[in-house]
Amino acid sequence: MHQRSLLTSACLALLLPSAVSGQTDLAKVRAWREAHGAQIVQDYAAFLALPNVASDTEGIRRNAEYLRGELQKRGVDAEIWPLDDAPPIVFGEIITPNATRTLGVYVHYDGQPVDAAKWTHPPWEPTLLTRALEDGGTPRALPAPGEAIDPEWRIYARSAGDDKVPIATVLAALDALRASGIGLTSNLKLFFEGEEEAGSAHLREYMERYGDRLGVDGWLICDGPVHPSRRPQLVFGVRGFTQFTVTVYGAIRYLHSGHYGNWAPNPAMLLAQLLASMKDAQGNVLIDGFYDSDAPIGEAERAAIAALPDYDGALRQELELAETEGGNAPLAERLLLPSLNVRGMESAAVGAAARNVIPTEATATFDIRLVKGNDPEAMLDLVDAHIRKQGYFIVREVPDRETRLAHPRIARVVRAPGYEAARTDMSDPFSQQVIAAARHAVGEELVLMPALGGSLPLYLFTDLLAKPAVIVPVANHDDNQHAPDENLRIANLWDGIDLMASIFTMP
Amino acid sequence: MHQRSLLTSACLALLLPSAVSGQTDLAKVRAWREAHGAQIVQDYAAFLALPNVASDTEGIRRNAEYLRGELQKRGVDAEIWPLDDAPPIVFGEIITPNATRTLGVYVHYDGQPVDAAKWTHPPWEPTLLTRALEDGGTPRALPAPGEAIDPEWRIYARSAGDDKVPIATVLAALDALRASGIGLTSNLKLFFEGEEEAGSAHLREYMERYGDRLGVDGWLICDGPVHPSRRPQLVFGVRGFTQFTVTVYGAIRYLHSGHYGNWAPNPAMLLAQLLASMKDAQGNVLIDGFYDSDAPIGEAERAAIAALPDYDGALRQELELAETEGGNAPLAERLLLPSLNVRGMESAAVGAAARNVIPTEATATFDIRLVKGNDPEAMLDLVDAHIRKQGYFIVREVPDRETRLAHPRIARVVRAPGYEAARTDMSDPFSQQVIAAARHAVGEELVLMPALGGSLPLYLFTDLLAKPAVIVPVANHDDNQHAPDENLRIANLWDGIDLMASIFTMP
Repeated sequence: MHQRSLLTSACLALLLPSAVSGQTDLAKVRAWREAHGAQIVQDYAAFLALPNVASDTEGIRRNAEYLRGELQKRGVDAEIWPLDDAPPIVFGEIITPNATRTLGVYVHYDGQPVDAAKWTHPPWEPTLLTRALEDGGTPRALPAPGEAIDPEWRIYARSAGDDKVPIATVLAALDALRASGIGLTSNLKLFFEGEEEAGSAHLREYMERYGDRLGVDGWLICDGPVHPSRRPQLVFGVRGFTQFTVTVYGAIRYLHSGHYGNWAPNPAMLLAQLLASMKDAQGNVLIDGFYDSDAPIGEAERAAIAALPDYDGALRQELELAETEGGNAPLAERLLLPSLNVRGMESAAVGAAARNVIPTEATATFDIRLVKGNDPEAMLDLVDAHIRKQGYFIVREVPDRETRLAHPRIARVVRAPGYEAARTDMSDPFSQQVIAAARHAVGEELVLMPALGGSLPLYLFTDLLAKPAVIVPVANHDDNQHAPDENLRIANLWDGIDLMASIFTMP
Repeated sequence: MHQRSLLTSACLALLLPSAVSGQTDLAKVRAWREAHGAQIVQDYAAFLALPNVASDTEGIRRNAEYLRGELQKRGVDAEIWPLDDAPPIVFGEIITPNATRTLGVYVHYDGQPVDAAKWTHPPWEPTLLTRALEDGGTPRALPAPGEAIDPEWRIYARSAGDDKVPIATVLAALDALRASGIGLTSNLKLFFEGEEEAGSAHLREYMERYGDRLGVDGWLICDGPVHPSRRPQLVFGVRGFTQFTVTVYGAIRYLHSGHYGNWAPNPAMLLAQLLASMKDAQGNVLIDGFYDSDAPIGEAERAAIAALPDYDGALRQELELAETEGGNAPLAERLLLPSLNVRGMESAAVGAAARNVIPTEATATFDIRLVKGNDPEAMLDLVDAHIRKQGYFIVREVPDRETRLAHPRIARVVRAPGYEAARTDMSDPFSQQVIAAARHAVGEELVLMPALGGSLPLYLFTDLLAKPAVIVPVANHDDNQHAPDENLRIANLWDGIDLMASIFTMP
């Protein structure tokens, strides 16, 4: 079916009619990308050259203005949304006549802070290498127009993988479609955040304030890496997140382990016993009710897990683990369960600083990853109930003398804020449309992942805005995100352009 | 029975006959001490003014020469025993015609290192205070001859309590007895060590090299404080000591707790489970055989424990403990058992440095206090067997890739050197003689303690030299030993002189 597309009412002429029925043929898009590869890489390098740490107000402003300019250059109606002193949202809107739907596209343009001394090349001087650094890659000039581009080249810079690359693919896909005379099938709302790496502290407020501009039928959340096997993937959920810290107490001062050992309670041992009561030898959580609120897993999700590449064995080799929890249970299945993880543990000292004392206190800090159905506070209530069941009196502040003398077992339990999990049903029509479009672009290599183990505030899209959301990663898995020498493999940039072009033109 | 005593053949005339039968009347000793108190305190201050850290060769030499001089001044045959670069032993010998026995007297003249900035008065400028510092004591001049001395005065200096004071009491007791015309009943062998606080590294070698000079019937080990109730005490044993450190392993790098939580083993949790398997909720050790080699406790020891002042309740109040192990079992009973104490524990980080990771390893360091009958290495073998029983493969070095991939549970167990406990039977005739003499000096206040919870290499006396050994403490329990503002309460000096005089003249 022929279709006319618009970017905005002001740029009707920019987009020509598409000539495909059902799903656009991507051959033209690829041909255009091959002809213009040097320009795409150069434009991307210019974007990466802009420092983008959320706390760097001036750097963030330059990124936001650059993005608004790039959108306007393409005829997109683009705005910068301010909010107090928060990094702004860059918002772009493309109206498509007779659109099948309105598609929201989320990307973040800020990046993690850098320790520049640890980078091989400066983090904001994008450097093209002939391979990955660890494979002996050496710097080379950016490609000249017409020059052949090796897809194994990598561009090194902060945010090369996390998370500027989806923006580069969106811009290149729009250019390729326009130049190829292929029309969009959806209205697009481009929503680029500037403080994701600083914790998205204002994301909810932005959504509440600008909610009337954010009406979409479904979201593409463009962040994160593709599957470690290098296969492209779509992800339909994330785990939520909460934290708590437990401190248990012994005597008010360090005691000589000889004069008091066997008599004064040892808080390190008490803490060990408390922790041991929380999980069995296979890593299953023993806290009453911990798994009771998990939402059921659908058939589509079960089928997707069964079809996942078996990467666990390779991962165990890489991490030098003879065995993983649940008797080598598949990682993807384990990630559908809430987890209880000891992040750190401390009592007195080990190593050279160790002394023959009975410690005064012992602390363990935990994070809980939540699955759909788990309420963060309710899960922490279960933890409290478990600790009480072990005989502990729970306090929130450091206990005073009276409290200490009244209770043989005292646990100070301090909660940190958290947020719930999010999951989009894989059998939802929007999910099915995105899956079909992605498969059209990348073929049967496509990996469908019901949920990431990690956490993002995806619930703001699926629950606050109440729309399906599919995570569409672009970057290579070995992109050193959050670390020195972050990089993007050019092949992933190419694949991302195909993916965006296909999704933007899905029936 | 009248008796003539000698210090050496060269000083026959110095000691006059004693006039008591059975046990010397101490009235004369006390009268002499009251008349000469100022001199005793001044002499002690002069001794305390000599810096005495074991590593300070010049300071140690000055102490040793001072002591030899003080002994020679009293007609004692005194020598300095060298051994390579080790702090020397100061040895003095007093031959008593028709002696009932030969008595060894062990004291150490070295002291703990100091952090002078933390001292109220300089550690080697002995300062007399009118009370304890924490009770508002203020400095005053050393007493002039004839001036009344308040027994609650305290002298502040390094080693005031640990462990120069027994030497002061020995010297003053010898002076008092001689001046009072009271003869000794034993030969004396005075054995003053100069590196106890540095670990007594050469004590065994000294004993082996000079063993033919150390023939005694029993030892007085003069070290440590009196009972916390301020009552004088005799102690008949110490716990031995050993250490080990356990590290368990997860993946070779920190893992994102979201992406891998519930799948990759968490070493902090593994360590907690391992520790929890070692003790029950009442603090009893669950390691097979841990209590099997304990030597039986005699009737005299059981009776002594039953007669101990009940200080546990006060101690719980002081330490702000609602309950102690074994359901408030008496401290003195618990100290007759070997103990397993977690000295410190660590995995990744808590507090501000905590991150959402699965740690790579977790470490706990332990000390074991041993009772009579426990072999240090055999006890560590039991620990190893227990760890293996929990499914661990034990290594001594950091495991390599091959080892990690071969064993799901790996524990690196590293041992530190230890030594056995020592106990002298309270019903041994030597013990009974010392008890009677001490009771004669201090009355029914005397506390008899079968064993200290702490550790000293007492086994060198009881097992290597194979003689009974009774610990005779002099210092106040609140003397800040090993800490800044170490001090001696004058009343303890006076009690110590009585005690020494009584023991030196026991029938």
